[in-house]
Amino acid sequence: MKPSFDIAVVGATGSVGETLVQILEELDFPVATLHLLASIESAGSSVMFAGRKLKVREVEGFDFAQVKLAFFAASAAVSRSFAAQAVQAGCTVIDLSGALDNALAVVPEANADQVAGLKLPALITSPCSGAVAAAAALAPIKHLLDIEHVQVVASLAVSAQGREAVNELARQTAELLNARPLEPHFFDRQVAFNVLAQVGKVDEQGHTTVERRMVQELRELLGQPELSISTSCIQVPVFFGDSFNVAVQCRHAVDLAAVNQALEVAPGIERVDLDDYPTPVGDAVGQDVVYVGRVRHGVDQAQQLNLWLTTDNVRKGAALNAVQVAQLLIKHGL
Amino acid sequence: MKPSFDIAVVGATGSVGETLVQILEELDFPVATLHLLASIESAGSSVMFAGRKLKVREVEGFDFAQVKLAFFAASAAVSRSFAAQAVQAGCTVIDLSGALDNALAVVPEANADQVAGLKLPALITSPCSGAVAAAAALAPIKHLLDIEHVQVVASLAVSAQGREAVNELARQTAELLNARPLEPHFFDRQVAFNVLAQVGKVDEQGHTTVERRMVQELRELLGQPELSISTSCIQVPVFFGDSFNVAVQCRHAVDLAAVNQALEVAPGIERVDLDDYPTPVGDAVGQDVVYVGRVRHGVDQAQQLNLWLTTDNVRKGAALNAVQVAQLLIKHGL
Ligand SMILES: NC(=O)c1ccc[n+]([C@@H]2O[C@H](COP(=O)([O-])OP(=O)(O)OC[C@H]3O[C@@H](n4cnc5c(N)ncnc54)[C@H](OP(=O)(O)O)[C@@H]3O)[C@@H](O)[C@H]2O)c1
Ligand SMILES: NC(=O)c1ccc[n+]([C@@H]2O[C@H](COP(=O)([O-])OP(=O)(O)OC[C@H]3O[C@@H](n4cnc5c(N)ncnc54)[C@H](OP(=O)(O)O)[C@@H]3O)[C@@H](O)[C@H]2O)c1
Repeated sequence: MKPSFDIAVVGATGSVGETLVQILEELDFPVATLHLLASIESAGSSVMFAGRKLKVREVEGFDFAQVKLAFFAASAAVSRSFAAQAVQAGCTVIDLSGALDNALAVVPEANADQVAGLKLPALITSPCSGAVAAAAALAPIKHLLDIEHVQVVASLAVSAQGREAVNELARQTAELLNARPLEPHFFDRQVAFNVLAQVGKVDEQGHTTVERRMVQELRELLGQPELSISTSCIQVPVFFGDSFNVAVQCRHAVDLAAVNQALEVAPGIERVDLDDYPTPVGDAVGQDVVYVGRVRHGVDQAQQLNLWLTTDNVRKGAALNAVQVAQLLIKHGL
Repeated sequence: MKPSFDIAVVGATGSVGETLVQILEELDFPVATLHLLASIESAGSSVMFAGRKLKVREVEGFDFAQVKLAFFAASAAVSRSFAAQAVQAGCTVIDLSGALDNALAVVPEANADQVAGLKLPALITSPCSGAVAAAAALAPIKHLLDIEHVQVVASLAVSAQGREAVNELARQTAELLNARPLEPHFFDRQVAFNVLAQVGKVDEQGHTTVERRMVQELRELLGQPELSISTSCIQVPVFFGDSFNVAVQCRHAVDLAAVNQALEVAPGIERVDLDDYPTPVGDAVGQDVVYVGRVRHGVDQAQQLNLWLTTDNVRKGAALNAVQVAQLLIKHGL
């Protein structure tokens, strides 16, 4: 008989948490007992898993010594409060908030080798969806490129900011179409039929948390801590599915045929030919891969490689990657 | 008495053409007779100008010798058919379609000096909105930067593709909100709540016409025909207002204080501090300037300058720039 594991999902009532629970079921993950945790507000509600209604409990007071593995899909503050004590209690943590500086970022398609030598229990980060997508697309081709600089412009779906943001885009859109006055709540201004130049607040240097996170995680995932990467994350009026324009400036001409060939066979990647292009709604949403399209040089510039990526931010960009990391941990003796 | 001019507007019933006619009025442009031209389908309809209803006529058969200046705001095909014969008839053409290879691209904020020595009648291009915006923002700071590469990612409004595209986004959005089946007409797929990776068809190298146009025009406007520029134009579900993420890779550290100072006093530019950011809907639409925000380095990268631009694509990005070019021509003896 295969071993099975006691597991906790913190933030089980959120978009990522609910999807995570679904994916555990879909992938037939070896779960013994599943503990669903959230804030006091959802304590007592229930979530379906494998045909049964499971009760949600408050994370405060939960004894992490009961579980071998915990997914943290709540907020940065929750991860900061509970992740370290979970590891101390012997539980490996896969954190989705990006709040834990000393956690190892893992995307199996990019750096599965890092998990092999890991001492358990460990603190692991499932990176932000931009780092997941860019790492999955760049890892299988980086040996073909002599990279000078990577520029990622991310068009993020509102769901990247959780449930409330999704409701707000729907409400704002309906108000505008019905010519009713627009009253922003979650966002500080109109997001429907608009583009916001940043997602979240900026620091003194003008960068947002998610922009810094993407740069740092991508460097770690590609195993190039000094790599010159820059990024801008913008908010588009899309419910689900993040898109990324990735421009890679190289020191030598890029062999597009070799790049296409490598992407064609890469795990977790669906390559789209130039006669079409993938979109969040039409392709990525609900799927388990990162779509890669518009593979081309720059205009008059063979030393540049351009890629267009799109992926389901809640699924491949978050919940699925976290579960795939967990599967990898099991392979290495969790 | 100031001289006044007989003028033609080709495409007078379109988004850009109508705005152009409005702007001629707003700016008290010295118009003697205004000829409004379109296809046979709109011939007979009328457009308001200076409190009077002017009849629209068919461009086919119009004698351009009657006018000193013609704005071409119809389509690439119309410019190709009629612009050369207009110039031969002694009429200076300001083309907005980008179809004319031998036309001089002009954005007054960037290369007004090019107009001084121009032999009239001339063939002039009012560049695509991305080139207008990027040129207006980069011209006043280029002496501060030792530019290696410029990367522009453009999030284009549907109105960049004309009236029909605007109607289609509204219709698709209403259908989705009312849970009715979506039937794309103008676009070949869902554009509401989605992002399309390209605007128009790509050529064999994978570039769209507007991407090539932006690169070539921006080089010309900055007076640097060899400048390394690359661009991706994506379609966002926004009615009006284009946005641009501009990343400038330089050979030396960028002095942000000097950049901000130069932008602060630059004509046609409204600089926004880091405690806020401009958006198409909230700021740019209906305005006569290019908004510049998020002025910052790259993460850990003082040699990179990042800018976020947004502008009204129909107004500043097209009609207004064309009229400003015409004003410049008058100053130089049209
Ligand atoms: N959405 C994405 O695309 C995405 C992608 C990558 C990473 N992430 C990260 O994943 C995490 C969850 O995102 P989400 O989109 O699922 O957010 P969400 O839909 O807003 O859900 C938040 C979840 O956290 C729980 N929570 C909030 N405050 C809590 C507290 N004090 N104690 C315990 N639980 C608390 C909520 O429980 P209640 O029901 O009790 O409020 C809910 O289950 C975030 O860290 C986010 O940055 C999200
Ligand atoms: N929209 C923008 O943001 C933008 C920005 C920069 C440049 N441009 C360029 O400006 C031009 C106009 O764009 P738009 O957005 O205003 O398009 P639009 O709203 O679709 O209007 C097109 C105009 O062209 C006329 N037209 C079409 N076929 C014609 C023909 N065979 N003969 C004569 N007139 C014809 C139409 O007249 P009918 O009423 O008779 O059909 C209408 O007046 C295009 O070249 C576009 O690329 C647009």
